[in-house]
Amino acid sequence: MELKIKLLKWSAGLPVVMLEKKTAEKIGVHAKDRVFIKTLSKPSKEISTIIDIVEGLIKENDIAVSSELKKRLSLRVGQKVNVRIAQAPKSLISIKKKLNNKNLSEKEINEIIQDVVNNSLSESEIALFISAMYQQGTTMKETIYLIKAILKSGNQLKLKSKFVFDKHSIGGIPGNRTTPIVVSICAEAGLILPKTSSRAITSAAGTADVIETIANVEFSTNQVKNILKKTNACLIWGGSLGIVPADSKIIQIEKILKIDPPAQLLASIISKKLAMNTQHILIDIPYGKGAKVSRKEALNLERKFKYLGKYFKKEIKCVLTDGRQPIGNGIGPMLELIDVLKVLNLDKEAPKDLEKKSLFLSGKLLEMAKKAKKGEGFALARKILYSKKALERFEKIIKAQKGNFKKLQLAKFKKIIKTNSSGKIKEISNKEISSLARVAGCPVDKSSGLYLHFHVGEKVKKKEKILTIYSNSKSRINEAIKFYNEKRPIKIK
Amino acid sequence: MELKIKLLKWSAGLPVVMLEKKTAEKIGVHAKDRVFIKTLSKPSKEISTIIDIVEGLIKENDIAVSSELKKRLSLRVGQKVNVRIAQAPKSLISIKKKLNNKNLSEKEINEIIQDVVNNSLSESEIALFISAMYQQGTTMKETIYLIKAILKSGNQLKLKSKFVFDKHSIGGIPGNRTTPIVVSICAEAGLILPKTSSRAITSAAGTADVIETIANVEFSTNQVKNILKKTNACLIWGGSLGIVPADSKIIQIEKILKIDPPAQLLASIISKKLAMNTQHILIDIPYGKGAKVSRKEALNLERKFKYLGKYFKKEIKCVLTDGRQPIGNGIGPMLELIDVLKVLNLDKEAPKDLEKKSLFLSGKLLEMAKKAKKGEGFALARKILYSKKALERFEKIIKAQKGNFKKLQLAKFKKIIKTNSSGKIKEISNKEISSLARVAGCPVDKSSGLYLHFHVGEKVKKKEKILTIYSNSKSRINEAIKFYNEKRPIKIK
Repeated sequence: MELKIKLLKWSAGLPVVMLEKKTAEKIGVHAKDRVFIKTLSKPSKEISTIIDIVEGLIKENDIAVSSELKKRLSLRVGQKVNVRIAQAPKSLISIKKKLNNKNLSEKEINEIIQDVVNNSLSESEIALFISAMYQQGTTMKETIYLIKAILKSGNQLKLKSKFVFDKHSIGGIPGNRTTPIVVSICAEAGLILPKTSSRAITSAAGTADVIETIANVEFSTNQVKNILKKTNACLIWGGSLGIVPADSKIIQIEKILKIDPPAQLLASIISKKLAMNTQHILIDIPYGKGAKVSRKEALNLERKFKYLGKYFKKEIKCVLTDGRQPIGNGIGPMLELIDVLKVLNLDKEAPKDLEKKSLFLSGKLLEMAKKAKKGEGFALARKILYSKKALERFEKIIKAQKGNFKKLQLAKFKKIIKTNSSGKIKEISNKEISSLARVAGCPVDKSSGLYLHFHVGEKVKKKEKILTIYSNSKSRINEAIKFYNEKRPIKIK
Repeated sequence: MELKIKLLKWSAGLPVVMLEKKTAEKIGVHAKDRVFIKTLSKPSKEISTIIDIVEGLIKENDIAVSSELKKRLSLRVGQKVNVRIAQAPKSLISIKKKLNNKNLSEKEINEIIQDVVNNSLSESEIALFISAMYQQGTTMKETIYLIKAILKSGNQLKLKSKFVFDKHSIGGIPGNRTTPIVVSICAEAGLILPKTSSRAITSAAGTADVIETIANVEFSTNQVKNILKKTNACLIWGGSLGIVPADSKIIQIEKILKIDPPAQLLASIISKKLAMNTQHILIDIPYGKGAKVSRKEALNLERKFKYLGKYFKKEIKCVLTDGRQPIGNGIGPMLELIDVLKVLNLDKEAPKDLEKKSLFLSGKLLEMAKKAKKGEGFALARKILYSKKALERFEKIIKAQKGNFKKLQLAKFKKIIKTNSSGKIKEISNKEISSLARVAGCPVDKSSGLYLHFHVGEKVKKKEKILTIYSNSKSRINEAIKFYNEKRPIKIK
């Protein structure tokens, strides 16, 4: 049936369409059924998608599409398309095969990932795939197929140099904003670091959110090449390059389900590094109580990363770090940026734990790059930081990304929380601190967040400040206080 | 944040809402995040739901809701509601527990089902629950908790009589429309049969679709009681009574995923019978090649049904029947009704297999009701059918359901398919026949479908009619012919 494109400026997060009830009846589809949409121009493009049904909102001969779908098929408003009933995709059979604990072939995994990208699989079906991987586990072979398939799904940055490095953390630790510091130090030493980062999914801030406080983070591959030429590094949002669209979509659903199967975690990281032409990768695996993984799981992950490094002929090094509490003082995009700037500026109030971890990671990278002998990387990193050359390099990167160091204005409301008793800080819950910062408005409200006045092991007096909450909304401040009192994320003994 | 209700006449199949981009930013939510919506009037109602984000389509202070959600909260257009960010529901933790192969408690299953009903779980999360049950299996205890929870989620028909019977097929066999015949025969013998049926999910027709060709199938519980008083039976759509809303929602997602975990199959059937106050249940389990279950699975299912019967103190009998090919000649709502009417009218062209199976099932029920001695039910059923009393009873039921026997007009286009060679019918694929009927327009286009001229084992000559396809759309006829030639659902040897 021929229908006319209507745009709803509707962002459902995924490509979806709406049909008028009578039109749907004519095509013979119900809500949540699937249709093929095919453009009439040559060469015609086609994708399948799940439909919603509306009554009256759109005309009988119209089909309303979400902005994601319009973009995907390069549709114009008013354009005619052919719409017909679609059957379930073949890859659903492969997903069920995995669900029944059978290993998948490279071809089957490829088909699944293709169907994720071309929208043939619905959210629930992708959830089924994620859950099958989670429950049945995956072989290293399947993980490799997954990486290759995800890599194939998107663009790649083609760089001439082989001297390309990356540092990646598996996440889970609030305030752990080492990336801008590490990248600045190492770029200054001559390493090339096309660093892509994520926006916050369940945390208070991702590196992309932090950098976005003062600079652009969305660029095309050509623009990225230009930035790299000028500064040796970039600090951008991975999603903007379209490098791994399959991964982005799977992550979107993992975010709802709050499960992250190991194979997908590995595939997500490695496929992005391969797409960015990275040859040497340092992986930070924070472990311990309150971290994403235990020590045992961390060692297991390390083993897998090394296996994949060998397979893809890349140098992959892992470091297991202490993940039992937040790092730095600020939690939230702007507050974390302030921490980063304090470290780079050699401010006497700079968080020492953030500085130390950043120097440690930088040192490892410098050693991998043979810029320092084994055991001497930390000292070299410190030398670069203390010469303020890292600060200069960071300023260069920010400038190349069209940023400027305007005055950083924190959120207008703040609430200072004080101790009830004296003692020693026993525990700071990573998870609750992240949630608390989100209640305060993170990551959307960039100037909101938390300031931790202490770390685990430090002594506090009675009535001493231990936490400041920042928010631009009075009701969020109140909700945050309520949340704090309920969850008590900082324990004193 | 206070927002004004706008109705989009938007049927997404599930309750969903749209927020304007700026409003979403203020609340701090992204597409696919979750909000609480609370009415301001006392007593206030609250549910949580996943949001979509639109730009421009609605005003900043509006919240657009789907018709399902409007109904759920009894909302008026223009009414103010309070909207705030919501966290993931607690039951997601229980779902993950099941995913990790741990058994769930009654409380945990209750919470999951409550969150299914009150919309706190998104589609993907329900998919996760279905997949966890499918992959990890469920204990009989968990199945019982599931039945109780689903039962609690909706209305129940309170009947005074204990003499209430039901016949249920686990499905999967096209044309297997015994229900109207069995119900008519047994109601004539004095049994009470408040029969609820489903609409087609993946098949060409459900009993509700068939009856809807000539009568209403949607009634309130009070109306149903009235119909039962007049005729001893009803033939209605189960969804209309709101008896098991949790089950309806789970089935909607199973339909997309095309998986049906045994626990959910059992819970779905038993909870509906309990809600309808049924005391004696006959379950038809068609098995064999091309059926839903193998003989071994059928026996396993029978064992579980019996266990549940004992637990809930209901008489449950199972019959294992031959499920290797379609039953009757017509496939599709109207074509199946025509078969039913031919059997009731003692038409000489009536499909003998449909008559025989209907008499067999009726006989079993009559024996369960002690209307006939063991082994004599079939003869009594045949006597009632051949006296044309069953036809009269059926007409009474249809009349009570505001129906009438208008002229049944089949779809305007038809295509007769003839054999290429002589031989014997070797196989008729249940699955492909269903799909073919759906390609022709079933179940939405009630007068479309198939007519099977032969059954397995019968001899055919060359150039003999074996199949007629009916459709109201020329393009569907063409697609059906293409589908037929590709899949060859009828095999001759």
